[in-house]
Amino acid sequence: MSRVLYDLCGIDEALRFSPYCWRVRYALAHKGLDVETRPWRFSEKQALAFANHDKVPVLVDGETVVADSYEILRYLDRAYPEAPLLGDSMADARGRFLAHYSERSLAPAILRIIIMDLLNAIHPDDREYFRETREKRFGRSLEEVHSPVRGLSQLDTALEPLRARLGEASYLDGEVPGGADYIVFGKFMWARCVSSADLVSNADPVHAWLERMLDLYGGLGRQATRITDIEGAYR
Amino acid sequence: MSRVLYDLCGIDEALRFSPYCWRVRYALAHKGLDVETRPWRFSEKQALAFANHDKVPVLVDGETVVADSYEILRYLDRAYPEAPLLGDSMADARGRFLAHYSERSLAPAILRIIIMDLLNAIHPDDREYFRETREKRFGRSLEEVHSPVRGLSQLDTALEPLRARLGEASYLDGEVPGGADYIVFGKFMWARCVSSADLVSNADPVHAWLERMLDLYGGLGRQATRITDIEGAYR
Repeated sequence: MSRVLYDLCGIDEALRFSPYCWRVRYALAHKGLDVETRPWRFSEKQALAFANHDKVPVLVDGETVVADSYEILRYLDRAYPEAPLLGDSMADARGRFLAHYSERSLAPAILRIIIMDLLNAIHPDDREYFRETREKRFGRSLEEVHSPVRGLSQLDTALEPLRARLGEASYLDGEVPGGADYIVFGKFMWARCVSSADLVSNADPVHAWLERMLDLYGGLGRQATRITDIEGAYR
Repeated sequence: MSRVLYDLCGIDEALRFSPYCWRVRYALAHKGLDVETRPWRFSEKQALAFANHDKVPVLVDGETVVADSYEILRYLDRAYPEAPLLGDSMADARGRFLAHYSERSLAPAILRIIIMDLLNAIHPDDREYFRETREKRFGRSLEEVHSPVRGLSQLDTALEPLRARLGEASYLDGEVPGGADYIVFGKFMWARCVSSADLVSNADPVHAWLERMLDLYGGLGRQATRITDIEGAYR
């Protein structure tokens, strides 16, 4: 059976930096499922028309098409019940909170640090689209969002609950990683792929967790192409 | 079988404001279990010696003694498996994250708003102990922690993931309230009992959730004595 993931790419086809696609890559690896990732750019809306969706990730699993990273994780639990990602309804409800935490607490802080790196990592044909949609969403220019010092301070505060949890357990989901880990970790892969900024100090329990996450599944995250791996791309 | 909860009281025996005790009060009500709450003050360490613990909540359930609010919720799920509070190991792991979020993201912000009200609500015999232990913990005086404007701004940011979750579901745990709701809500009961400060605007989904939480179990939270109910106590 063929399994295809439409996966955002940047200035180079090998540069895959979508935090939502990284959730799915890890979720598939967690289930032991192979996947062919198909590079996709923001401007290629037409390529996703078959899914009635205009953003990645979109997973095509045999006859089934699923869009939205959280829905894809739910689908994977239904279709492949071994090794749950989101778990039962109570675990899933709390997983939703983690997704909102990742989106509303971590991402805005990280974005202030990496936004100019992110723009640089995006394919030149996509930059105008990216600038336009994001400036509309943020209500200010990308240059105004850019503020690494404030971003790092904001991130330090936002990381508090993550830090406390990772001070008592190896993974957010306990002794083995689960959906909550992948949901949150996606944001760190996003930053790692487009930027060389250090987001977390070596002494932080979050740092040790990031290292463990990078090593999972044969170094899935660690082996991912970063902007710094692409000659002449990092400015 | 007798069931007793040692419950922090303040300037009046009826004033019960511990966020951790409120978690347990709601958890017991969720399970449909009656309880006798026994007022306890910070200075009465000796009264908890039987539990090898020096803080409330301490629950005595027949022959069983359990301290620490999270451990009490776990105990209640083991002893009374109907209507789970924390759920299976994956749900519990994420419940721990919610507990850390409540402790590290919400509480510091709320504290900046209510700390002088909190001191005022504490029994006069306990105030020296409270000041000494908290100033040591915070590394600054209570007066320096007190900063309602900054606290409200910090709380507004910290509430983001809660707001997003409560924009999509009636309760953190889904269509019915669960352990995650009680864990977080305890912090709001803490503030409500000692202060008249408005923490959340009427238009916020968090506000509607707080109203629902106050109404649960026959108005358990809404009927709780507040400092403003005690003649001459609120300054």
